[in-house]
Amino acid sequence: MSLSAELWPDVQPDAARRLMLAAVESFARRGYHATTTRDIAGAAGMSPAALYVHFPSKAALLFTISRSGHEQTLGLVQNVVATSAEPAEVIRRVVEDFVAWHARRHLVARVVQYELAALPEREYEIVADLRRLIENTVREVITEGVRAGVFQVRDPRMAARAVLSLGVDVARWYTSRNRTTPDELGREYGELALRMLGAAVPPVE
Amino acid sequence: MSLSAELWPDVQPDAARRLMLAAVESFARRGYHATTTRDIAGAAGMSPAALYVHFPSKAALLFTISRSGHEQTLGLVQNVVATSAEPAEVIRRVVEDFVAWHARRHLVARVVQYELAALPEREYEIVADLRRLIENTVREVITEGVRAGVFQVRDPRMAARAVLSLGVDVARWYTSRNRTTPDELGREYGELALRMLGAAVPPVE
Repeated sequence: MSLSAELWPDVQPDAARRLMLAAVESFARRGYHATTTRDIAGAAGMSPAALYVHFPSKAALLFTISRSGHEQTLGLVQNVVATSAEPAEVIRRVVEDFVAWHARRHLVARVVQYELAALPEREYEIVADLRRLIENTVREVITEGVRAGVFQVRDPRMAARAVLSLGVDVARWYTSRNRTTPDELGREYGELALRMLGAAVPPVE
Repeated sequence: MSLSAELWPDVQPDAARRLMLAAVESFARRGYHATTTRDIAGAAGMSPAALYVHFPSKAALLFTISRSGHEQTLGLVQNVVATSAEPAEVIRRVVEDFVAWHARRHLVARVVQYELAALPEREYEIVADLRRLIENTVREVITEGVRAGVFQVRDPRMAARAVLSLGVDVARWYTSRNRTTPDELGREYGELALRMLGAAVPPVE
């Protein structure tokens, strides 16, 4: 399977995915505003006219990348919530998956997390709704854990933000030359997040 | 005192500081690569020629902003380390100051943290040395805390990165419309960081 098919299995045809991958690489390297549709088409080995067959504008490309990234991370959070009712177990697995996603797809994640301000207003609102869903889901799990006495947290909203922040920031510093694999990093951060929430974590041997 | 004098008290004359502030605003809004020296000079109410009196290039402006930001954050870390020998107390105050700095100066901090890749190679190395000093200082405090039995941490390097990550990511999401003040956020995060390191923190009442 190609990298772009792995990143965006739901996007068809392959040419659209190749344009998205070229856009991610260009945006991550030079920033959204300094990248032209001509740059993106060229990096994907296409003509500018071929790009417009798949995306009406550079903003449409950014929106597709951003929405897909948010849907994917929301999906993994909801997936964990659906399969466990134990707040500590849910937080551990959410952080594991969320962190590993941001490490494994760090270039995509950088565009997803750092180019929000470049989205047009309507598209921004759609993405902001997905972000709120992610934050609210995590906050509800934390609130439930506080109620059940497994977490010690004063402000679940701030705690949810801090837990997600840990994962988001991985996209900034992680590179493929890192010695820690995405899964290892996820496991370590899962434990750090649980401790942060005041959960009883077995002491380090 | 003007905002630019508050941000860069060591930079003289005022015109240089005004150019730095205009650069921060332009870089934060459109990214480094999409900003021209003409944009920056215009935003500071100067001619491009007047800019070159103070900075030989756009890269020199970015470097001055980046180095200053790293020196300031290194300074606050070293300042705490110099005034306390108790690892838990040091981490709490380092996180309080580091987080409050990133919230209060979130636009400057965004440029400092997210435009590293745009620095020319030699300038990048100088900034990378400052980053290593910050990380190493925090890691040593954590290692000392583990030795003293006040922290429970398997990998002090990863823990140091996670602690700083929490602070850095504040620059991404914090805005002046936030209900939590930089100091309040610092205090909350100081406690979250201590818990993350397995320190005994009094339970939430």
